[in-house]
Amino acid sequence: MSEPEPGLVERLLRFDDRALGRSISAIEAGDPQALATLRGLRARGGSARVVGVTGTPGSGKSTLVDALVAVMRAQGARVAVVAIDPSSPYSGGAILGDRIRMARWYADPHVFVRSMATRGHLGGLAAAALQVVALLDAVGFDRILVETVGVGQSEVEVARAADTTVVVLTPGQGDGVQAVKAGLLEIADVFVVNKADQPGAERLVNDLRGAIGLAEAPPAGAWIPPVLATVASRGEGVAVLGGAIARHHAHLVARGGMPEVRRERVRAEVRALLTEAARRALADIPDAALDALVAGERDADTIVAALLRRAGEATA
Amino acid sequence: MSEPEPGLVERLLRFDDRALGRSISAIEAGDPQALATLRGLRARGGSARVVGVTGTPGSGKSTLVDALVAVMRAQGARVAVVAIDPSSPYSGGAILGDRIRMARWYADPHVFVRSMATRGHLGGLAAAALQVVALLDAVGFDRILVETVGVGQSEVEVARAADTTVVVLTPGQGDGVQAVKAGLLEIADVFVVNKADQPGAERLVNDLRGAIGLAEAPPAGAWIPPVLATVASRGEGVAVLGGAIARHHAHLVARGGMPEVRRERVRAEVRALLTEAARRALADIPDAALDALVAGERDADTIVAALLRRAGEATA
Repeated sequence: MSEPEPGLVERLLRFDDRALGRSISAIEAGDPQALATLRGLRARGGSARVVGVTGTPGSGKSTLVDALVAVMRAQGARVAVVAIDPSSPYSGGAILGDRIRMARWYADPHVFVRSMATRGHLGGLAAAALQVVALLDAVGFDRILVETVGVGQSEVEVARAADTTVVVLTPGQGDGVQAVKAGLLEIADVFVVNKADQPGAERLVNDLRGAIGLAEAPPAGAWIPPVLATVASRGEGVAVLGGAIARHHAHLVARGGMPEVRRERVRAEVRALLTEAARRALADIPDAALDALVAGERDADTIVAALLRRAGEATA
Repeated sequence: MSEPEPGLVERLLRFDDRALGRSISAIEAGDPQALATLRGLRARGGSARVVGVTGTPGSGKSTLVDALVAVMRAQGARVAVVAIDPSSPYSGGAILGDRIRMARWYADPHVFVRSMATRGHLGGLAAAALQVVALLDAVGFDRILVETVGVGQSEVEVARAADTTVVVLTPGQGDGVQAVKAGLLEIADVFVVNKADQPGAERLVNDLRGAIGLAEAPPAGAWIPPVLATVASRGEGVAVLGGAIARHHAHLVARGGMPEVRRERVRAEVRALLTEAARRALADIPDAALDALVAGERDADTIVAALLRRAGEATA
């Protein structure tokens, strides 16, 4: 195992922007030295509260996250933002590098904003994002906001890996129905109807409350997701949202304590790595094995077993 | 390896409804004897064309699939339908058992309709669905229509595993934009704007054509997805859709031949099984390993490698 470069850990622990940026890039690239540095720092982690913010494109997530940063900074918390923005491999859309957002917090040493983008497969990004969260926790950020577009399964996984998952919807797009169909009801700890000054907001709030009420009766003491209304662009409702996130965190701690919260988070990290390893395993599959399956000469299970064994050897 | 029950293979090969139904249930349950029967039959497969039909809930997919069955039957093809309908584990929604649909074709021995549902995780369903498709191919169906709700990633995987993937949208729901965002543009070989008698249909057709045109210039000889309009409830446009599916099949055969088409299909099957094995591996992870990761005593990669090795042993 290689040693981290001299002074790097110290710079990370004082939130040095450049050291953080370079370490994150190295984690994204799967650099063994960066992962060793992360491992060495892990035991310091555990105090961050990780908040996932997900929702449909155009729901105003970024504006809401920025407003949340302001609320959390006013309370003295050190805040990191990880914005995950996969661009479609088909559309060739631009990678998001939201300089304006970063500029807003440029002068504040206790806010760190990082966009992570991929033009390819999301599986590796999910694993890297969760390792970046672990790093930001370890170096001492109090709040980590992870922003994702709630469309693909991997993104939902990342949002779900947060301690608290905020699902952002907007009125007038059939969002309520879509959210239920897409399984967002299951992962939301807090619902936000953003752009609540637009027509249909009240109805969406009521629909969501109705859908939550229709669900199977929750066990005693279970968390029931509140449905909040915000106008993030004017900061309206954002302090209330901050309060709901804090209440949910208190609920988690009361239920299982921080060890269980952290265990769930690393479980998501292992899951993402495993998924990525499985994906690589599949890319390696020889056509001959597929032809043997087509011909009935081998069965699918023995092919899968061989791929898993090989993937295990490649990962270790 | 156990032997199939006497006469089962013969009954399957003459499309005996009960034999098919029981074999499919056994495949869904992962029954080793059913999988052995499937393996023994595989070499007979290869003549079916598999068509995935996916789209948003309420887009009229089932009606469209029924109309397609009628078109294909009129051409003398023997047609099987696999309708995948996962109900949300949260909503407790009813499992779809669409008796009315099956009744329509009850008297026709060359149409077989099967719904597959799950209230739990979809990964296992995707693998089972692809094995059911392999069985239906092997016993001699000419066309296999696989109907899924195009929301979750596993469902998109199943639809994508088809030779030809038909994406069904409807006007007036912002479906065009959503389809692009959800990655449906990437997987569609044919777009259908169903309920084309409703307002906004023409605009949706034009939007989709525009989106396809905006994409990076396709390589020479690439398939460009046509955008068709249908009113499935009156059968309008369905014959044209059948023609587009046939043209796409001819394109595939010209490009790689049937061996490559079938290889892609079993690749999806192996992928689904691998994903399911990875999921089970994760369910087995001991809390102690997660705690060691949290404490920096182990790193995530070595934990993943151990899980993969164990999963390989469990699968073989």
